Amino acid sequence: MIIDIHGHYTTAPEALEGWRNRQVAAIGGSGAPPARADLRISDDELRQSIEANQLRQMRERGIDLTIFSPRASFMAHHIGDQFVSAEWASICNELCFRVSELFPHHFAGAAMLPQSPGVDTATCVAEIRRCVTEYGFVGINLNPDPSGGHWTSPPLYDRYWYPVYETMVELDIPAMVHVSTSCNACFHTTGAHYINADTTAVMQLIEGDLFRDFPQLRFVIPHGGGAAPYHWGRYRGLAQAMKKPLLSEHLLRNVFFDTCVYHQPGIDLLTKVIPAANILFASEMIGAVRGIDPETSHPFDDTRRYVDATASLSPDDRTKVFETNARRVYPRLDARLTAQGR
Amino acid sequence: MIIDIHGHYTTAPEALEGWRNRQVAAIGGSGAPPARADLRISDDELRQSIEANQLRQMRERGIDLTIFSPRASFMAHHIGDQFVSAEWASICNELCFRVSELFPHHFAGAAMLPQSPGVDTATCVAEIRRCVTEYGFVGINLNPDPSGGHWTSPPLYDRYWYPVYETMVELDIPAMVHVSTSCNACFHTTGAHYINADTTAVMQLIEGDLFRDFPQLRFVIPHGGGAAPYHWGRYRGLAQAMKKPLLSEHLLRNVFFDTCVYHQPGIDLLTKVIPAANILFASEMIGAVRGIDPETSHPFDDTRRYVDATASLSPDDRTKVFETNARRVYPRLDARLTAQGR
Repeated sequence: MIIDIHGHYTTAPEALEGWRNRQVAAIGGSGAPPARADLRISDDELRQSIEANQLRQMRERGIDLTIFSPRASFMAHHIGDQFVSAEWASICNELCFRVSELFPHHFAGAAMLPQSPGVDTATCVAEIRRCVTEYGFVGINLNPDPSGGHWTSPPLYDRYWYPVYETMVELDIPAMVHVSTSCNACFHTTGAHYINADTTAVMQLIEGDLFRDFPQLRFVIPHGGGAAPYHWGRYRGLAQAMKKPLLSEHLLRNVFFDTCVYHQPGIDLLTKVIPAANILFASEMIGAVRGIDPETSHPFDDTRRYVDATASLSPDDRTKVFETNARRVYPRLDARLTAQGR
Repeated sequence: MIIDIHGHYTTAPEALEGWRNRQVAAIGGSGAPPARADLRISDDELRQSIEANQLRQMRERGIDLTIFSPRASFMAHHIGDQFVSAEWASICNELCFRVSELFPHHFAGAAMLPQSPGVDTATCVAEIRRCVTEYGFVGINLNPDPSGGHWTSPPLYDRYWYPVYETMVELDIPAMVHVSTSCNACFHTTGAHYINADTTAVMQLIEGDLFRDFPQLRFVIPHGGGAAPYHWGRYRGLAQAMKKPLLSEHLLRNVFFDTCVYHQPGIDLLTKVIPAANILFASEMIGAVRGIDPETSHPFDDTRRYVDATASLSPDDRTKVFETNARRVYPRLDARLTAQGR
């Protein structure tokens, strides 16, 4: 079976964006904020938005299940305050929950958090708990830079983040480290900010000793780990200069990379440099890069093709990347699949 | 012949750092700023600092010439104002000039600029001109983020930078896009900020149409282009979605990547994905990663080994990477070598 651990609800019905626009306008003083009940999206609308898009492509590509979270670029934690973020996260998570109920064999939820720059991360705990215990979500997305490209929060090894980590360990869920829209003109959202955040997160985790405090904590670094696998020698060398243990010990017991790398040479490097046990299949389809690669005539984000074709993975390794690593890193997904007899 | 286009004077005599410390302390109100004449470093001291370090390793590794600029992490353009930066840049550039005079066959200079956050880049022109016309420097280092990790300057395609670009075109010199120390705790200087800046610069150049205004402008993106070659499919796809020309046309007529990637798989990817005409040999030795790789028993930064060993380069390609590309991208270096009969 093939599990895609990185999907966002980028195709939600337009009513969602309309509601958000009214919420944002109200922050600026234009009109009253919308009530939650003002957002009406029927099951049929949800079904259609998924069947015509993610589910169609999953069937075409032979992907059995996607871990599905709210649209990353729409999280926009820099907008408004923690209460704005709380309302918005709650609404977005509920939609992903409904998708996972409508298509229980094809989608499992992961939560966006109601983060807000400078606000205690303990304010995120209730939403995490709700999503996991009531919605059956199997993971969360953690934004290391809720300011949207100004990087005003402490590094990931800082105690600022510990309330989230304690909850992750208690509930036995991993976090994907994923930023949102950049509001810094220097950083293109999907071309610079996303990739930089991945690289930054890896280096922060090398600098700190977070996993001494949380040996069970698990992070997924999306987009193939940013620049880290390409510069793996640099990171091994920097860790050595800092007198850290080997990265296999210091990092790879707790940190995993997804396969959202949109060409064959990139996947070849990832699978050569990073142990197969640390790679999780993902495509982030209908996401950052939606076109057809003129060099291959296939979609850039059809990462299954690259993983199938790479010479660096044995058949056993490929099974790990496609399925068993995901079941290990996301035990609640494994439980859900097992309950379904899969 | 082998030209290393990326070397910094990381081993300057301690008196330099002492002078800088006094200069920085004076900004904070501690004591009077030092006079330029207070810095006294003899030719013998310079000679020794080079012979025991860079020159020794160049000989060991068979590198004939290094393009040599002031220590990147010491540029620290965020400290003080434009006058502080001007004094500091002038002093650092002069030392590199003296090294290039003491070892004219082994070093050619590249200038650090007297940048300061928010200050008109026209203030850099006189120093560029001085370094090129009086010192015989062959290039410059341009810091896209003089704030040191807060990214408060406009993107590289903005007219803010045009005074520098006009001077580069007039003098026919390229710029290496190189940041300095990070003063943002999120970004480790050499592990995150440097690599992120490379990735960011590539994406800024994809977003803009700078080379329409400056068809002759040339940038070198250090550290193997940050994350860009690893994610080349992503960048090709993003450019396509933005209706830009193919990257071969939109970017690669003007943008070059160095080989400061500290393991074999990284160099294999770089040389497979990026045309040989756009790759310049470099090691940034005695720089960010100075240790011995326990997996190879050789220094991480001995990049000649990786370039020699990669299967992706033909003998002709390797000559381009080691020598002829550098002579083409840095015509003033070519002129200098030609005048030396090389």
